[in-house]
Amino acid sequence: MEKKYVVGVDYGTQSGRAVIVEADTGKELATSVKEYSHGVMDEYLPDGKTKLEPDWALEHPQDYLEVLAQTIPGVLKKAGVQAEDVIGIGIDFTACTMLPVDKCGTPLCFYDEYKDNPHAYVKLWKHHAAQDEANKLNEIACERKEEFLNLYGGKISSEWLVPKIWQILDEAPVIYEKAFKFMEAADWVVLKLTGQERRNSCTAGYKAIWNKKMGYPSKEFFKALDSRLENVVEDKLSTDIYPIGSKAGELTAEAAELTGLNPGTAVAVANVDAHVAVPSVGIVEPGKMLMIIGTSTCHMLLGEEEKIVPGMCGVVEDGIIPGFQGYEAGQSCVGDHFEWFVKNCVPAGYVREAKEKGVDIHSMLTEKAGKLAAGESGLVALDWWNGNRSVLVDVDLTGVIVGCTLLTKPEEIYRALIEATAYGTRMIIDTFEENGVAINELYAAGGIAEKNELMMQIYADVTGKEIRISASPQAPALGSAMFGAVAAGSEKGGYDSIVDAAEVMAKIKDIVYKPNPENVKAYDRLYAEYKLLHDYFGRGENNVMKRLKKIKKEAKKNG
Amino acid sequence: MEKKYVVGVDYGTQSGRAVIVEADTGKELATSVKEYSHGVMDEYLPDGKTKLEPDWALEHPQDYLEVLAQTIPGVLKKAGVQAEDVIGIGIDFTACTMLPVDKCGTPLCFYDEYKDNPHAYVKLWKHHAAQDEANKLNEIACERKEEFLNLYGGKISSEWLVPKIWQILDEAPVIYEKAFKFMEAADWVVLKLTGQERRNSCTAGYKAIWNKKMGYPSKEFFKALDSRLENVVEDKLSTDIYPIGSKAGELTAEAAELTGLNPGTAVAVANVDAHVAVPSVGIVEPGKMLMIIGTSTCHMLLGEEEKIVPGMCGVVEDGIIPGFQGYEAGQSCVGDHFEWFVKNCVPAGYVREAKEKGVDIHSMLTEKAGKLAAGESGLVALDWWNGNRSVLVDVDLTGVIVGCTLLTKPEEIYRALIEATAYGTRMIIDTFEENGVAINELYAAGGIAEKNELMMQIYADVTGKEIRISASPQAPALGSAMFGAVAAGSEKGGYDSIVDAAEVMAKIKDIVYKPNPENVKAYDRLYAEYKLLHDYFGRGENNVMKRLKKIKKEAKKNG
Repeated sequence: MEKKYVVGVDYGTQSGRAVIVEADTGKELATSVKEYSHGVMDEYLPDGKTKLEPDWALEHPQDYLEVLAQTIPGVLKKAGVQAEDVIGIGIDFTACTMLPVDKCGTPLCFYDEYKDNPHAYVKLWKHHAAQDEANKLNEIACERKEEFLNLYGGKISSEWLVPKIWQILDEAPVIYEKAFKFMEAADWVVLKLTGQERRNSCTAGYKAIWNKKMGYPSKEFFKALDSRLENVVEDKLSTDIYPIGSKAGELTAEAAELTGLNPGTAVAVANVDAHVAVPSVGIVEPGKMLMIIGTSTCHMLLGEEEKIVPGMCGVVEDGIIPGFQGYEAGQSCVGDHFEWFVKNCVPAGYVREAKEKGVDIHSMLTEKAGKLAAGESGLVALDWWNGNRSVLVDVDLTGVIVGCTLLTKPEEIYRALIEATAYGTRMIIDTFEENGVAINELYAAGGIAEKNELMMQIYADVTGKEIRISASPQAPALGSAMFGAVAAGSEKGGYDSIVDAAEVMAKIKDIVYKPNPENVKAYDRLYAEYKLLHDYFGRGENNVMKRLKKIKKEAKKNG
Repeated sequence: MEKKYVVGVDYGTQSGRAVIVEADTGKELATSVKEYSHGVMDEYLPDGKTKLEPDWALEHPQDYLEVLAQTIPGVLKKAGVQAEDVIGIGIDFTACTMLPVDKCGTPLCFYDEYKDNPHAYVKLWKHHAAQDEANKLNEIACERKEEFLNLYGGKISSEWLVPKIWQILDEAPVIYEKAFKFMEAADWVVLKLTGQERRNSCTAGYKAIWNKKMGYPSKEFFKALDSRLENVVEDKLSTDIYPIGSKAGELTAEAAELTGLNPGTAVAVANVDAHVAVPSVGIVEPGKMLMIIGTSTCHMLLGEEEKIVPGMCGVVEDGIIPGFQGYEAGQSCVGDHFEWFVKNCVPAGYVREAKEKGVDIHSMLTEKAGKLAAGESGLVALDWWNGNRSVLVDVDLTGVIVGCTLLTKPEEIYRALIEATAYGTRMIIDTFEENGVAINELYAAGGIAEKNELMMQIYADVTGKEIRISASPQAPALGSAMFGAVAAGSEKGGYDSIVDAAEVMAKIKDIVYKPNPENVKAYDRLYAEYKLLHDYFGRGENNVMKRLKKIKKEAKKNG
């Protein structure tokens, strides 16, 4: 049999990337990245005039097509692979990243008459302006004792589908009316590739309150939210849910033209970027948690049974690997945390020193921070600069630093922020374990995990668990390629299941970060302090953060 | 009568300064400043080899003589004044700044055999290494229900005389043994000027647990501390206490040689830098609180009766103005707060912007912070970067910021730090008022008060009180000169009382900062948040700060 290849396309927050992979080895031959032409729109629409409210984050669907048109031909060319040797393609996306489309699947923002309406565009996962709707939804669901709440840690996030749809209905009923469907961007790209909507079980389960046994929430529930929403499921959502790991269809002639691949190439049902990375590090069984560390961190974990774990993002049957419960948790501010620090808090002298040494500022801060012993900074921080996604599920929480003195140095604060994110991870692990979901080992993927040894060692020391690192610099794209191989099937040179694909194609590095017993002891004490502050500020004992946000909002309005 | 002049010498933390003043108008003719040659020694002794432990802060007494030798001839020359027209001199000093001397008043650090012993040097007010002794002292005093505790807000500070002496006894018994006396540096300078020790009532009262009615603590108390301390008062301290406002003596021939003044010039009993500034802004009656804003802030207030106010630094009869109870409170981190921020937290882009605009970085940050409305930052901080001096009296408290988000900007943190110091001041004011000591108006002195209009307006808005500003750029030195005029007496062209002197020589600016009612409302809400956090972290509900300090200490020892 001739050498066969698969393509994975990973849609991130700022750019999309394709990777081309040998189906029989998992070897990644070439990568191509395309920044989104419109980027993340959080101030203005593309007209440069229509101003967006705070907390908005939009994207332009045209950018997603550009990714296909540029990166797939790019990797074929770089790798010297012929289109006929590519047997399958898989795609993954940030989620819930959603858009309103017409009957033909055309985004409403492509219409001249709607292109000035912000609600016609893609609402990116980090669009946080549907918080009022999320709050009302949670209140009503809580009153009605809706069973589904338990599956999502007791709270539906403002980042998810229903609050976003409800915001559209509230603020732009004309868009709601005109929308034939609200789609996940992931499914929209698959529609563009195959000509068919194939709503994937992963985003339906994690982001749209869909459950394999119970389906979507009831009409009564939606009616209780808003009488106009009573029929939202039948009217505006696809109810045909396709499990991940299955085939969505085959490339249309039009899509073949766009991508440079052959018509008929197998296309996998779409996936979420974090979830798809799980098999790419070889995790296909319970007990191993994958952390995808980027601007934020997603935590992925398999379980045998559906356990109710308070404050987690979701548990979805077949949500990550078919045959298992897939658990998701998250921290909303990790890489962003360090970026904020570098942008706002690093003194000129440090910038000069880094320049003189020819290293980037993160490396220099990491080097300085690495010279400190655990606990030496005297600081403890709460990692809530962007709210808390798990265990508290509260976007209105904010960051705290305790322990500053006149001798506190920038690298001490930097290390305290790293540690804070590690404590946040441990809080998630502890909560899983306390609720019957075991975690024995950690895996990490993403640029920070790969590059920052200090951070990984701190994570091992804080959690007391060994950490293994993805060997693919683009774990999600590799995972998507693997699902592309499964869509093609073993007859075509692919695989019959993701477990089979993972056995051959998954990759981790040789290095294992092991907890240092001395540091584990020190961090146990520091984590106890974190936990006290976490509960004090996070569980309603002192709602100062919410009150400060309220005062801030009023000050801005009056100012 | 010919024009007469007085000289005031103010010994600060880093330098000493002299001012020469017209006795009949208060007009300041010339100033001269001398940085201390040895500066503040907090890492090494002058040999550059003997390393000091953390929290130490020493000075070299030779530097104090250099101030006299350089600044007094300096102001005479600049002002074109003849020595015979100078009728008096007053000096003031930081406190408790103390040193061990031999029978002749020679500092032990001048001896070859002791010059390698850190305990032979001057312990500066901010030497914080006697905390263990202070803790033990407070514990024992509390157990014994010592009445004096009430006069000092329930706690004796590690900055004060007895803990410092006890530390010497603990760590360097040879120095304790050899010391003929432990003196305040202020009194030592007066000794050098007049040939006589004239222990002043201000430092004795505020820093050495001396009370006009009760004297020093009892032998039994000192014995309970350490049997070797039983006779410390008789053996090592002067018990002849001279009230401020009286004459210490006259310049010796030797001191005249050193200073360029005439022998026989009247010398006032020494004073503390903050306290001496009170009459220089014209405060000679109750209800008006003076804030001396520098690296730290001292709050001075007169009262009719001796009230017990928890957590204040002290109440001393005749301690500030004869005939009144003098109340002192303090905040240990004000200017230092902003310096720390500028040194450690201001990004390179801001430094560049300030350079381009040709302004200093504080001015630029203040300008940016001034554009924010009250509450707009969403931040609240606890101003404990250097512990808390009043109301909690606890050096082991540390700084906190609450409310950080990914959009938090440097000027927002800078403003939050300014506001935190204002809340700290309000906490002091409220505590005085709740305990029966009225405060109607505020006065401020010091460089920051003079220059930073934003900060003064924030203080007015947070406290809800009008603020007047000293018109002398060196309020303490002017105050000392006023006491010099009182030492000379009216017959010589001076005054018979500090009240008479203040009527003529005191100076305040025309500007009055008035509370803005809108901002007062916003700050009332924010202050309520500060208070909640203040009590939570400061009153034992969560002693995280102390535990972090302990972990830090251990980490440093092991590291």
